[in-house]
Amino acid sequence: MLGNFSYHNPTKLYFGKNALDYLNDELPKYGKNVQLIYGGGSIKKNGIYDKVVEILKQNGKNVIDDGGVMPNPTVEKLRDGVRIARENKTDLLLAVGGGSCCDYAKAVSVSVNCDEDAWEKYYVRFENPDCEIVPVGCILTMAGTGSEMNGGSVITNHQAKLKIGHVFGDDVMPKFSILNPEFTFSLPKRQMVAGIYDIFNHICEQYFSGDDDNTSDYLAEALMKSVIKSSLTAIENPENYEARSNIMWTATWALNTLISRGKTTDWMVHMLGQATGAYTDATHGMTLSAVSLPYYKFICPYGLPKFVRFAKEVWNVDTTGKSDEEIASEGLSRMENWMKTLGLAMNLRELGATEDMIEGIADATIILQGGYKVLNRDEVVSILKASL
Amino acid sequence: MLGNFSYHNPTKLYFGKNALDYLNDELPKYGKNVQLIYGGGSIKKNGIYDKVVEILKQNGKNVIDDGGVMPNPTVEKLRDGVRIARENKTDLLLAVGGGSCCDYAKAVSVSVNCDEDAWEKYYVRFENPDCEIVPVGCILTMAGTGSEMNGGSVITNHQAKLKIGHVFGDDVMPKFSILNPEFTFSLPKRQMVAGIYDIFNHICEQYFSGDDDNTSDYLAEALMKSVIKSSLTAIENPENYEARSNIMWTATWALNTLISRGKTTDWMVHMLGQATGAYTDATHGMTLSAVSLPYYKFICPYGLPKFVRFAKEVWNVDTTGKSDEEIASEGLSRMENWMKTLGLAMNLRELGATEDMIEGIADATIILQGGYKVLNRDEVVSILKASL
Repeated sequence: MLGNFSYHNPTKLYFGKNALDYLNDELPKYGKNVQLIYGGGSIKKNGIYDKVVEILKQNGKNVIDDGGVMPNPTVEKLRDGVRIARENKTDLLLAVGGGSCCDYAKAVSVSVNCDEDAWEKYYVRFENPDCEIVPVGCILTMAGTGSEMNGGSVITNHQAKLKIGHVFGDDVMPKFSILNPEFTFSLPKRQMVAGIYDIFNHICEQYFSGDDDNTSDYLAEALMKSVIKSSLTAIENPENYEARSNIMWTATWALNTLISRGKTTDWMVHMLGQATGAYTDATHGMTLSAVSLPYYKFICPYGLPKFVRFAKEVWNVDTTGKSDEEIASEGLSRMENWMKTLGLAMNLRELGATEDMIEGIADATIILQGGYKVLNRDEVVSILKASL
Repeated sequence: MLGNFSYHNPTKLYFGKNALDYLNDELPKYGKNVQLIYGGGSIKKNGIYDKVVEILKQNGKNVIDDGGVMPNPTVEKLRDGVRIARENKTDLLLAVGGGSCCDYAKAVSVSVNCDEDAWEKYYVRFENPDCEIVPVGCILTMAGTGSEMNGGSVITNHQAKLKIGHVFGDDVMPKFSILNPEFTFSLPKRQMVAGIYDIFNHICEQYFSGDDDNTSDYLAEALMKSVIKSSLTAIENPENYEARSNIMWTATWALNTLISRGKTTDWMVHMLGQATGAYTDATHGMTLSAVSLPYYKFICPYGLPKFVRFAKEVWNVDTTGKSDEEIASEGLSRMENWMKTLGLAMNLRELGATEDMIEGIADATIILQGGYKVLNRDEVVSILKASL
């Protein structure tokens, strides 16, 4: 823990099979107008929508419908959500869904009482909110992004071919989040594994950086080991509560700032993945899995001791008689086998990317400084080509 | 994560060499009268007292002196602290010290505006506060108890020969805690290692219970591995910032509710240790170390799979050709060696306990239900005798 830092995470979490009951405890804290945010309507099929609306009605709330949030929420949808909130004097933004709905709710939250265009203010100029924030609550139906306990919000601008994340402060984090692992049971397997890889990669992004003996790295390994073990149960039996609950909990702690405390972080796989997402609109977790191995193989020599530690601690590689390079390489091979077992996208072509997009994706890739090797543009192009 | 639970920890932490600077950010949130709580006066020798008073004065605060908090804060001291707070209309209780000062501050916090006797209300009847709470802030000078980010408060009643802990809710947790690892450098080695064992045992108490595949147990192992590694550096070089900062951070996360989420917990070593403390007034961490091995050896057969996992994951025991009993036993042996390397108390006699106290200590031991074996009174006596 060599760095100075602060830690403050005020989100209240309710976890378990009865978690939704606690919505009754939270609703009295907010005004009458609840903007109910959801996605493509799967919550109407699995009954969660009806349950939530019933609780809202029992608590005397006006329900303002705001469905149709797409997997990569767009700037147009954001502007529409802000309009809805203004017209209805929304008191609480209640997101029922996965990270897209939570991210979108936060973006609306900081924009309702702000005169400027939200995209320009937060996703181009990265300003902090200077207007009153509308509180956000989440009811999670998909584990992956960690948006339920952080200030992150990713918005896509298809016209500009940009997918940009802004990490807002404590005051924008959800006031409460409701996590019932059973709500994730009906998710299609492809979405489940994309979420699992999103979790795993969030941990990697914070782990593969820095060289001190840092408690955060031990915690990162613990979360990786837990999610790997549970993922192998969940792909065989998606309704295994124990496995799905561990996956849901690791998702929250993989990205609520804990495992980055006191250390540097990388985040280049997310930068490559988000740039790809802006071009292909592919599922977020799959864009990460498609670029991961080419990226990690490229940076491995620059952060060799950490990749050796990763192989030993996370993948139980037997080190006897092997060079550091061999140990690190065997760790990445085991990770690759696990990814294939889950059925993740292993290249960008599967996601609709083509050779002629590479230069554009490289242009849209923000290059960060925290990893073991600061990439130049040629290296970005070369990693993207190796990912095709 | 098979259990239902909530998680909410509102304490704001400032960590690092410059952490005290942030006291300037926090003080404006509170009224003028600051009750400055500290222990035996070591902070006057090492300069921390002067620094804190300077910041308080710069922020226009009245400083109400409340020193002399003893290592095991007594009910008499608590009553005195409540009187001081009432007479001075205290707006903020600022504890500068270790867990004793933080625990005491929380006990005063819930008692100032309460008519009943604090001991009777909170430590005999275990009621929740129903009066206005005076906010608490902590400046930590000793790592161990985790009191800086939880609602726990242990008070000793020497007359009744009882040392009792009450875990208060989110609203009693410190509003902020300032954690500068350098503030722990001047601590005598005996206090440092007692704190380290307190951390380690907090983790054990939450780990040695339950049999599901629980993310919390992976996190517990991570914290154990980090504190073991850093402890071995710190006993050689107490001013190694990296080691002391990891120890400080693991202390906080070992007991801020995270690693108990979704699982049962044990806490019998603390019950035995606290009963011993009420008789001997010995250092808390040393009472825990003195009873630990007899206790864990006794319960090991009842929780064998977890002790095997502990041996493999925490102590890297090679399992080849060994029975589960042998693996578990080797894990406990390695733990014993580590404890001896640190110079911990390995029996109760070192702490001033004698044969004739055993029955009384057994009477004062609260028997809990969450561990692998619910003890009966004969077993408590037998473990205490084996600890002599």
